Amino acid sequence: MNGFGLDHLPYGVFSVAGGPRRVGVRFDDDEGSWVVDLHGETGRPEFAESSLNTFMALGPEVWRQTRDEVRALIEGGCEPLPLEEVTLHLPVEVADYVDFYASLDHASNVGKIFRPDSEPLTPNWRHLPIGYHGRAGTVVVSGTPVTRPSGQRKAPDEATPTYGPSRRLDIEAELGFVVGAPSELGSSVPVTGLADHVFGVTGLNDWSARDIQAWEYVPLGPFLGKSFATSVSPWVTPLAALDAAWVDLPGQDPEPLPYLGPGATRGLDIDIEVELNGEVVSRPPYRSMYWSPAQMLAHLTVNGASLRTGDLFASGTVSGPEPGQRGSFLELCWGGQEPLPGGRTFLEDGDQVVLRYSAPGTGGGRITLGEVTGRVETARH
Amino acid sequence: MNGFGLDHLPYGVFSVAGGPRRVGVRFDDDEGSWVVDLHGETGRPEFAESSLNTFMALGPEVWRQTRDEVRALIEGGCEPLPLEEVTLHLPVEVADYVDFYASLDHASNVGKIFRPDSEPLTPNWRHLPIGYHGRAGTVVVSGTPVTRPSGQRKAPDEATPTYGPSRRLDIEAELGFVVGAPSELGSSVPVTGLADHVFGVTGLNDWSARDIQAWEYVPLGPFLGKSFATSVSPWVTPLAALDAAWVDLPGQDPEPLPYLGPGATRGLDIDIEVELNGEVVSRPPYRSMYWSPAQMLAHLTVNGASLRTGDLFASGTVSGPEPGQRGSFLELCWGGQEPLPGGRTFLEDGDQVVLRYSAPGTGGGRITLGEVTGRVETARH
Repeated sequence: MNGFGLDHLPYGVFSVAGGPRRVGVRFDDDEGSWVVDLHGETGRPEFAESSLNTFMALGPEVWRQTRDEVRALIEGGCEPLPLEEVTLHLPVEVADYVDFYASLDHASNVGKIFRPDSEPLTPNWRHLPIGYHGRAGTVVVSGTPVTRPSGQRKAPDEATPTYGPSRRLDIEAELGFVVGAPSELGSSVPVTGLADHVFGVTGLNDWSARDIQAWEYVPLGPFLGKSFATSVSPWVTPLAALDAAWVDLPGQDPEPLPYLGPGATRGLDIDIEVELNGEVVSRPPYRSMYWSPAQMLAHLTVNGASLRTGDLFASGTVSGPEPGQRGSFLELCWGGQEPLPGGRTFLEDGDQVVLRYSAPGTGGGRITLGEVTGRVETARH
Repeated sequence: MNGFGLDHLPYGVFSVAGGPRRVGVRFDDDEGSWVVDLHGETGRPEFAESSLNTFMALGPEVWRQTRDEVRALIEGGCEPLPLEEVTLHLPVEVADYVDFYASLDHASNVGKIFRPDSEPLTPNWRHLPIGYHGRAGTVVVSGTPVTRPSGQRKAPDEATPTYGPSRRLDIEAELGFVVGAPSELGSSVPVTGLADHVFGVTGLNDWSARDIQAWEYVPLGPFLGKSFATSVSPWVTPLAALDAAWVDLPGQDPEPLPYLGPGATRGLDIDIEVELNGEVVSRPPYRSMYWSPAQMLAHLTVNGASLRTGDLFASGTVSGPEPGQRGSFLELCWGGQEPLPGGRTFLEDGDQVVLRYSAPGTGGGRITLGEVTGRVETARH
């Protein structure tokens, strides 16, 4: 058993030998790893789709019933496909992608590195979960190669910008939240509304070109330094599988405004491992975040912005208080000044990054979210 | 004739009396305003769709042939529908929405207003067309009411932020570019590639809550101050209808990097009128922009970010050098310090804003893009 037991049952999209894409559920047992073909087993049309969106749009009551049904199917002896015989695809047709900045340790570290002469946290940071929109069209499934981006960058000691491949390619180890049930334009989702709208979570690597980002991001925020690729797990873990993972986050000072639900600071006890070329280089703990998922969702919609099925919002880089818990190479090598053992700072061509996630399961053991992998390929131009 | 003659022929999506959505083309003649039901007239399946996306994905050669075919249909006496008998819908299923900041006058004005103690332009501004991703899910068709957003805002003289309806609701008069033909992840579109990918243009009002924006935007850019609504024309004017509108933009200093095509500064001679409650308050000229549409597209993709059919990128606020040419109330009232005649600064509930656009047509007269209207409704909470 490796974290895909009956207490997990994540959803994904697969195909077999060039056939159509279908919705499936993964489970592992003593004999191997399996994918249940949900359309084949149930005949429900929402599973004969190339993404989870149609199913997710049906809402929480259907999600609950389906989870029970899938468990019964497996226990009753359905005929699953061996995992190694299927191809996995991007599970969600991403509508809008929003990335937050919810780790106090990450925001403090980045502030110190990018703006050494200022207070590390901007004055708004403790009052609201800062976020911005990323590029939905370049969200890719785990395993998709990542081409090193080219663009315009200027180091502080250079007089003018130059064009070329990024010299500071980085990762951001994050947790992603997938919206299933939409909301109406002009309305807002209260801080109690997370489970009414969020279908599940995925691992997420928000690949970042720090040199491009540093030159472009004032005043309108990150753009090309982020928009070339964001990788997500092939499996979306339903919120119900994380029932045993909720914990109190460290706390908030000052108390946020009422719409952010002061005290609504329940987070998830998810451990992350960042692996570079087979070696673990960091272990960011999601339970150390400052802003909670419910607060991010309430903030995202407080202005009346509607949610669509397939919206993806992410936590921002997960970094804990210890050096070995930082979720980006920018922080791990402190802006390049403190190379890792072996001399490494940022990513090199050919590097393979794997993000692994685990959490307490409802069955007493641990579940493992779908991993997020990517290999860096040489810039094309 | 009012700018919708045979030299224009913009595309939109309409329905009749609750029937299905269909792709149509508008034209006006001495007897009235008309919509050609393209599916009814041609039987082509890409016109029996609820957006232009399927048609736009077919690429420039099909766009050209179709334009000729539509003109022949009208000249040959098809049976169009009276405009007043149809309902118009959002013409494009928006994939990613990117907003640029391409007007030197606008960026300078905003810099002076938002950051009075700094240089108005950030050091990167003249080196690259600054842009950011906006919320695609809240792009709405002209005529959709705009609910005043609530959120967190803090004036510089307030000690802590408060929650409530925006007190500085504003517009941004912009031009939008609609991508029809996609591009591959990892590749970039050269500065010569505009017409290979961009299907057409729309008017665009990027509604903005300046108080929310001012408090939230450092360091990751605008988010909730913009994400509640962006209005676009119901009609997408194909690039071909603007063949006579290309002009040289004012010029660029310093010369940009080669990927931005130094000298590729052809812009569009489009006049904009901003009307508030029936009175014209500003006339922004699009020909005064600093960065060209071709440069914005080349920059957007230089890092390998792919284009999808339905991507929308906008110019940012169009402001000319004269006070009567500013494309936002923020600038027109100079941050609230210089009210307009009558005492007006920002938008009040019940205000009706109309953006009108006109350009030289290929027939010697002028064409008028689809107007962009919106009425401000009271905040819901």
